[in-house]
Amino acid sequence: MVISSEKLLSSIGEFGLIKFIKKNNTKALKEHSVKLDIGDDCFVFASAKDNRYAVTTDIIIEDIHFKTKWSSPEQIAKKAVEVNVSDIASMGCAKPLYMFVSAGFSEKTTAAFAKKFFRALKKSCDKYSIHISGGDTVKADKLTVSITLIGICLSDPVSRSGAKESDIICVSGLFGDSGAGFDILNSGKRILKQHEKKLVKKHLEPEARLDIAYKMFQNNIKITSMTDSSDGLLKSVELLTSDYKKGAVIYLDKIPVSNELSEFSKKDKRKIYHYALNGAEEFELVFTIAACDKIKLQKILPSVSFIGSVDNSGKIKYCDKGIKTEIKYDGFKHF
Amino acid sequence: MVISSEKLLSSIGEFGLIKFIKKNNTKALKEHSVKLDIGDDCFVFASAKDNRYAVTTDIIIEDIHFKTKWSSPEQIAKKAVEVNVSDIASMGCAKPLYMFVSAGFSEKTTAAFAKKFFRALKKSCDKYSIHISGGDTVKADKLTVSITLIGICLSDPVSRSGAKESDIICVSGLFGDSGAGFDILNSGKRILKQHEKKLVKKHLEPEARLDIAYKMFQNNIKITSMTDSSDGLLKSVELLTSDYKKGAVIYLDKIPVSNELSEFSKKDKRKIYHYALNGAEEFELVFTIAACDKIKLQKILPSVSFIGSVDNSGKIKYCDKGIKTEIKYDGFKHF
Repeated sequence: MVISSEKLLSSIGEFGLIKFIKKNNTKALKEHSVKLDIGDDCFVFASAKDNRYAVTTDIIIEDIHFKTKWSSPEQIAKKAVEVNVSDIASMGCAKPLYMFVSAGFSEKTTAAFAKKFFRALKKSCDKYSIHISGGDTVKADKLTVSITLIGICLSDPVSRSGAKESDIICVSGLFGDSGAGFDILNSGKRILKQHEKKLVKKHLEPEARLDIAYKMFQNNIKITSMTDSSDGLLKSVELLTSDYKKGAVIYLDKIPVSNELSEFSKKDKRKIYHYALNGAEEFELVFTIAACDKIKLQKILPSVSFIGSVDNSGKIKYCDKGIKTEIKYDGFKHF
Repeated sequence: MVISSEKLLSSIGEFGLIKFIKKNNTKALKEHSVKLDIGDDCFVFASAKDNRYAVTTDIIIEDIHFKTKWSSPEQIAKKAVEVNVSDIASMGCAKPLYMFVSAGFSEKTTAAFAKKFFRALKKSCDKYSIHISGGDTVKADKLTVSITLIGICLSDPVSRSGAKESDIICVSGLFGDSGAGFDILNSGKRILKQHEKKLVKKHLEPEARLDIAYKMFQNNIKITSMTDSSDGLLKSVELLTSDYKKGAVIYLDKIPVSNELSEFSKKDKRKIYHYALNGAEEFELVFTIAACDKIKLQKILPSVSFIGSVDNSGKIKYCDKGIKTEIKYDGFKHF
């Protein structure tokens, strides 16, 4: 891929950048092998006699990814951990082990703030038995948290690329709450109704679905492809299908949504589907299985929903209660 | 350590934070062992049947660690890589393998800038056969580059803690140039003399000393402790000695300095020593060896200088041409 010099970076986007890096990446790894390369949820490497390690990294910056007037230091720390655990969960078989935290604090940051932040970071890490293994603390105008998390793969990692025609698209939980919560926060509204508070909480305190990944791994559910929905459900489906010249039909009425989102959207289906498809930072698992594994999965994890199927069309199409619909939805963009 | 809530974070500092994190860190790593914990140049882990991996992470932020009016995108990328390779070099026996890059770009960033940045990043990685393995690209007000680098240890990693009484303190190169270069840039001076240009280049384009580390490793030089001088020579000596209740005598006149620094300092010894001891971001190796290994090292690496010795005093003292001196020098602080 050639990146034209006149363009703004925004015209290329994150995925364009990954392609640019991937091309001509150094291959001088004779004694090591890359099991899963850049561009998936984690990078996985191993040496001949080694375990396989999954690595993921994420960075969040004040006023871009969070606001200190919305989030407590505890919520910022928790979200930073969960976001990375979510990528490890996407491997299907990985256990998080070591976390590296680079934090940029402003000169005005109080010890109390930093203490609350690191206590919450530890608490979130303890929940997953993660060891805080290193980091860097620097001055910054805006609070900046960059985390790298290393996990160990207990089996073959599940990549984004394995979906096959007629595979079923599954999701681990509800969609749209986080996006709606973000819009509520962004509206500046001060006094929130009960359902609005719940949506805001979903945005500020997401939870990775490592539990779901483990349960499927322990029960030998054969997952053909998987990612997490950090950039929204639609983007996740694209990552598993159209990125590999596959297509999908999404059954809009099968996407699980909360009562709170319905109430917030005043039962306007277009609004509900908009949040469910495009709302970012949900951190649910989006994955595919062969049709023959559906009943087994349903038994083990009744909370999993089946929201679509894979085809060879190269496009994402929508169906609402069996009827094709032509609505156009856009994914979340980083730039 | 208890962090009092009223204090500003700056009163605790980076090393106080590391202590805070280290305390009560999760120990739930049954199948894995930590070979070198948080607080050293790298974190090193291994499983029973595994290779040992060294991991380091660093974050640099525009207007804090660099300015785009001073540094080209190529220089920013190169420095970000070299800083991390320098930590891997500090392990004495580690080869860098996998790099994870999180980059925050402003909305105004052009594709040309990003292209130059990532091309230079690749070029720097190629120099060390490093594979760019993952990352995250996000929006940011200020250009932010967070790198995590994983290396493999070819033998036991050298920690900061092994210096013994009467060990000799060694350095891999010149000191003070980077600090002087920074001051020249900061002065806003537009037309630079030849020696000033060279000092500025040393600040903007540092080089990690992986070559020196390798040569010592290949020649079985027994290094008792090592770190890199990212926070200045004085801080490095403290990290190897007073942090472990050891002390040191530094022979000021033995610290190697460049002709350019002498010229810039107008041969004022106090100024030269100030830059040599406190100038940060030099990325030379500072290490200790047993006195009996001095001749062997001198033969293999004539460029290495012997600038002091370790004692049990718990303090850092200075000697200038054999005469004790009481000058007080302060290290570089992140906050």
